[in-house]
Amino acid sequence: MKIFKFVGMSLLASSLLLGATSVADKAKGSGLKAIPTDKAELMKLIDPNKTITEERVELGKRLYFEPRLSKSGIISCNTCHNLGLGGVDGVPAAVGHQWTANPHHLNSPTVYNAVFFKEQFWDGRSPHLEDQAQGPMQAAPEMAAPKSLVEERVNSIPAYIEEFKKAYGKEVKVDFEKITSTIGIFERTLVTPSRFDDFLNGKKDALTEAEKEGLNVFIDKGCTSCHTGIALGGTMQPFQVAGKYRFANVGDFKGDKNGMVKTPTLRNITETAPYFHNGAIWNLADAVKEMGSTQLGIKISDEEASKIVTFFGALEGRKPVITYPQLPKSTNKTPKPDFK
Amino acid sequence: MKIFKFVGMSLLASSLLLGATSVADKAKGSGLKAIPTDKAELMKLIDPNKTITEERVELGKRLYFEPRLSKSGIISCNTCHNLGLGGVDGVPAAVGHQWTANPHHLNSPTVYNAVFFKEQFWDGRSPHLEDQAQGPMQAAPEMAAPKSLVEERVNSIPAYIEEFKKAYGKEVKVDFEKITSTIGIFERTLVTPSRFDDFLNGKKDALTEAEKEGLNVFIDKGCTSCHTGIALGGTMQPFQVAGKYRFANVGDFKGDKNGMVKTPTLRNITETAPYFHNGAIWNLADAVKEMGSTQLGIKISDEEASKIVTFFGALEGRKPVITYPQLPKSTNKTPKPDFK
Repeated sequence: MKIFKFVGMSLLASSLLLGATSVADKAKGSGLKAIPTDKAELMKLIDPNKTITEERVELGKRLYFEPRLSKSGIISCNTCHNLGLGGVDGVPAAVGHQWTANPHHLNSPTVYNAVFFKEQFWDGRSPHLEDQAQGPMQAAPEMAAPKSLVEERVNSIPAYIEEFKKAYGKEVKVDFEKITSTIGIFERTLVTPSRFDDFLNGKKDALTEAEKEGLNVFIDKGCTSCHTGIALGGTMQPFQVAGKYRFANVGDFKGDKNGMVKTPTLRNITETAPYFHNGAIWNLADAVKEMGSTQLGIKISDEEASKIVTFFGALEGRKPVITYPQLPKSTNKTPKPDFK
Repeated sequence: MKIFKFVGMSLLASSLLLGATSVADKAKGSGLKAIPTDKAELMKLIDPNKTITEERVELGKRLYFEPRLSKSGIISCNTCHNLGLGGVDGVPAAVGHQWTANPHHLNSPTVYNAVFFKEQFWDGRSPHLEDQAQGPMQAAPEMAAPKSLVEERVNSIPAYIEEFKKAYGKEVKVDFEKITSTIGIFERTLVTPSRFDDFLNGKKDALTEAEKEGLNVFIDKGCTSCHTGIALGGTMQPFQVAGKYRFANVGDFKGDKNGMVKTPTLRNITETAPYFHNGAIWNLADAVKEMGSTQLGIKISDEEASKIVTFFGALEGRKPVITYPQLPKSTNKTPKPDFK
């Protein structure tokens, strides 16, 4: 009995070990990548041009939470990309200035791990976060602030100018590009390592058996053909925009010039419902099945979808601890809020 | 020469000392009070019913930042009472659900130090923060969420239920009253001691000479007849609602049954423009002069107003450090956002 037990446990242990190793290797083989634990390696990825400094990140954080960068004075980056809600707003289509829903009915993508995306925006029209930040701030149905208004607001507040000088030197010109790119620098730091990363990085018990099984199904079904790389997404994919993805009734988004839509990241996906670029589906298992039929042309069963969703739990990342910023006070020169 | 210098310095030091002492005493004599430095004494003031616990404050903080407590899912308490902006939104009249400006054109009062107010709301209709929190959440032009929706949203999220159990015991009923009163408990902790408090508490050099002079003018002009107590405000005062305070064109607010409007706190007043219950004046010196003529029937000169505003700088308080909360994820049972 003792011997049997010993043998039994041995076999079990060895099978788990093999299983863990092989699923991790299989994941890597299918293009999935961990967020590096080595800080220098991570910095190379998120900061290739070496623009990150402590002062810029702190200033960028303030600006990220700064509602006075919107025309009305009440909408900040964090309104739609809420760092407490998985980096999103949790509604199908972003709602901005004058309560206007995004006219293309586009869902706010998460800002977490967006630094790993090859392209920004759903149609991939922006190459990086510093460029992306210029868009929503000016867009009429979002923050609706002309460049000049953003510049005037920030330049009217001496404490901001001081911070820009500390971050970039005394000669800094605090213009729209500098303001938005500083936000981009902050966003580069919004990386959320998860148990999945621990697993790929060698910690074999970081995933439960059920999560390992889910990962296996995820790979076997072919999900990694699009959801790959360090972000498990973030690159353009063919997407049936004009097909059943129902844009006819909710907006006029057509994807990029090839009718393509960016694959969203799956990191923190359990926290970022509703799903797809049009926020059309709330239930994550339904979204998985839909992707199977629409994108892969296969049927994913309820049981398989459930397993994949179990794996997604391991992608919930550890969020950076954010101290809510105290924003500097307006002055008599600060342009007033404008709700028109 | 040495003797002269010694005598001179002695006289100067003694005059400063006397000056400092007398202004501080004069302030206390006119009803101004410091936030106590003694923790037990402070707790007696902010927590008379001993409801504050660490778990409740942490949970209340989450709920304070929780946009899913609004009908749309995108407006939280912090939207209009922004803890990074002196506890206000910085706009004349609060804007809420469907971009509706407050129909009475009422300015969002600061949440900082509101625990010290004798009454809540501009018309003083609410006795304490726990009660106050029920108002804006349900008000159609603010968060627009019926009680039942708030209860369903919170109860659909198991992580919240766990937190309520930790905060109140396993038998807790997570109803609207419990949710809002927990927010009130968090708000009780939002106290901002300032250099003015240090000064009243005996630190004679906590104020500059110019600030001491401003405080002196503030008292001599009679401002403390309304702006008194620990909040430098927070009680009802006669206010010419129907007079030049221009409600005719901006709303139908009439004050309380006696036509009275609450005196706002002056703590952090330099950070909370625009001013008055209708947000009619942006410039703080102008606001001071206006109060002189409207409330006190006196003329406050530009120079005097400027001195008083200098004193107000000493009322900028040290804000509690707030770690931005990670909010628990929605489930498939969570009622969806409703923008209608």
